[in-house]
Amino acid sequence: MKVKAYAAKSAGAKLEPIEFEMDAPELNEIIIKVTHCGICHTDIHYIDNDWEETEYPFIPGHEVVGIVDEVGSDVSDFQKEDVVGLGWQIGNCRECAACTKGLENCCVNMEDGYSTCVGRPGGFAEYIKVPTDYVFHLPKDIDSASIAPMMCGGITTYNPFKLYEVKPGMKVGVVGIGGLGHFAIKFAKGMGCEVYAFSSSPEKEEETKKIGADYFVTDISDENLTRKLYFIISTVPADIDWNRYIEILSPGGTLAVVGVANNISIEAGPLIMEEKRIGGGSIGSRERIKEMLTFVNEKNINTEYELFPIDNVNGAIEKIKSGKIRYRAVLDLSTI
Amino acid sequence: MKVKAYAAKSAGAKLEPIEFEMDAPELNEIIIKVTHCGICHTDIHYIDNDWEETEYPFIPGHEVVGIVDEVGSDVSDFQKEDVVGLGWQIGNCRECAACTKGLENCCVNMEDGYSTCVGRPGGFAEYIKVPTDYVFHLPKDIDSASIAPMMCGGITTYNPFKLYEVKPGMKVGVVGIGGLGHFAIKFAKGMGCEVYAFSSSPEKEEETKKIGADYFVTDISDENLTRKLYFIISTVPADIDWNRYIEILSPGGTLAVVGVANNISIEAGPLIMEEKRIGGGSIGSRERIKEMLTFVNEKNINTEYELFPIDNVNGAIEKIKSGKIRYRAVLDLSTI
Repeated sequence: MKVKAYAAKSAGAKLEPIEFEMDAPELNEIIIKVTHCGICHTDIHYIDNDWEETEYPFIPGHEVVGIVDEVGSDVSDFQKEDVVGLGWQIGNCRECAACTKGLENCCVNMEDGYSTCVGRPGGFAEYIKVPTDYVFHLPKDIDSASIAPMMCGGITTYNPFKLYEVKPGMKVGVVGIGGLGHFAIKFAKGMGCEVYAFSSSPEKEEETKKIGADYFVTDISDENLTRKLYFIISTVPADIDWNRYIEILSPGGTLAVVGVANNISIEAGPLIMEEKRIGGGSIGSRERIKEMLTFVNEKNINTEYELFPIDNVNGAIEKIKSGKIRYRAVLDLSTI
Repeated sequence: MKVKAYAAKSAGAKLEPIEFEMDAPELNEIIIKVTHCGICHTDIHYIDNDWEETEYPFIPGHEVVGIVDEVGSDVSDFQKEDVVGLGWQIGNCRECAACTKGLENCCVNMEDGYSTCVGRPGGFAEYIKVPTDYVFHLPKDIDSASIAPMMCGGITTYNPFKLYEVKPGMKVGVVGIGGLGHFAIKFAKGMGCEVYAFSSSPEKEEETKKIGADYFVTDISDENLTRKLYFIISTVPADIDWNRYIEILSPGGTLAVVGVANNISIEAGPLIMEEKRIGGGSIGSRERIKEMLTFVNEKNINTEYELFPIDNVNGAIEKIKSGKIRYRAVLDLSTI
């Protein structure tokens, strides 16, 4: 069948409507009618060819929620009309150093056919066809636009809280109050933590506290912060004052980096003397995604999003690039 | 009573025999007749005033094994003739961000009276007087010279294996085959790990394998190493090729730093994409020290040491500085 979509035809180009031919699903595949798709910074990096590996025309989109439209003949766990979600990953190689250790979300061959929109048409489209391995059932009455950004942005911030064993009552810092940061604040609050939001934009204080932050910090040099926080998650796509944030960690604490930083440079002494740690996090396994979906359902956690009809996708991208989105942009595909 | 000891009288000076007056023990103190004391790099840093905080005359020594000679009137768990050991720490402040979180070994006020040889006479002496809180019972028939270096050097390498949850069967890397590195090899082997020893000294291969290393690596650029090791412990007192060792970690793996490095500089990408971590370790809690003593007893692990009579302490220090000690220097105090 013919499928309508939006694609970039060259590096940095505006997205344009296109049509492409979609074959019937293979044995283990399903076709999903996309209702909503979040826009993630990674989509924009690929549109702009920032990592010099984009193939054009490029159809972005990997924060997908939709309705199952057609199922392959071997598919038993999904049927037409099911509401489902899908994130960055659609498979894993099962052979690499990560997959063989059960760290499927770190599959080192991810971009060789196991990413939702790399080398295959993504979710800025009427329909998307994928194998079922990484498709998640969602309740029928769910707010699909709220869940879509959680499929990548949400899990990226949820996962480190689990990796680094954050517990209720702990003092937690969130650096950067954007798409990822707003999830981190909501998740930390939902877990019963005391939340310190770090931002260089004083005008964000009121909205940040409304989301769930207990404290809003613009001056990281404040001595009262030293050794105060057990866990800090940096969501900003930039290098931060690594040494100062390490000082702000309590002994035994962890600084988790999920924003695409460049180079981490830290004095070894404080790391050694106070058993501090710095570590990364990358999306999350299927088990972790299911755990997150249960958690946000139980705690009534929603994404703060702005909805754009698909024909204004370029306006949405511009708003993301300008830093003005509060806090995730979601495309409504119903009008495609 | 008059106590004989060896002290540095100024920064970098040779140690000289001195005598000092020791009062009777306070209520909770004991006096230990020192039989053996290890020489740790930290002693040498203090002798040389490398951290600009040494008070002279300085009596080094914090890897102490000896025999209880006199006990304070409130002491019930030690008695005359008990064989005991003692490491870097003799107390903790109970108030700081570390102590209140149960991380007593990271007490941030450690050097304000809670270190065995800082601001008080250390173990290069006929007798040492300490509170009992951090004194450990040892079996009477133990090789005291072997146990002494474990009280600081040993626990410093044992602790990160536990902090970072190393398990039997894992592939483990040890960077630097000196005092700390030789402990790391023996402990990793004792835990049932496959041990990769990294050294820039090819001539150490045979002796390193004799200690327990399964593989001896001089060429870290070997591509077969990439993503191979779950845990790497750097014991060298210098910056290493951080990015390459992070590559050698398997996804989810940890690089632990215990050698006094200067600055850690790493690319953020691999840390994020593969959930790798870098962290420090600092001696160990009392519980951890007891666990280590049980472990080395069960696994028959001994320190490889060279014994020096106390009157050749300066010769021992010279040999440590020249990098020729195999692998820890221990002073015999019986001839003082």
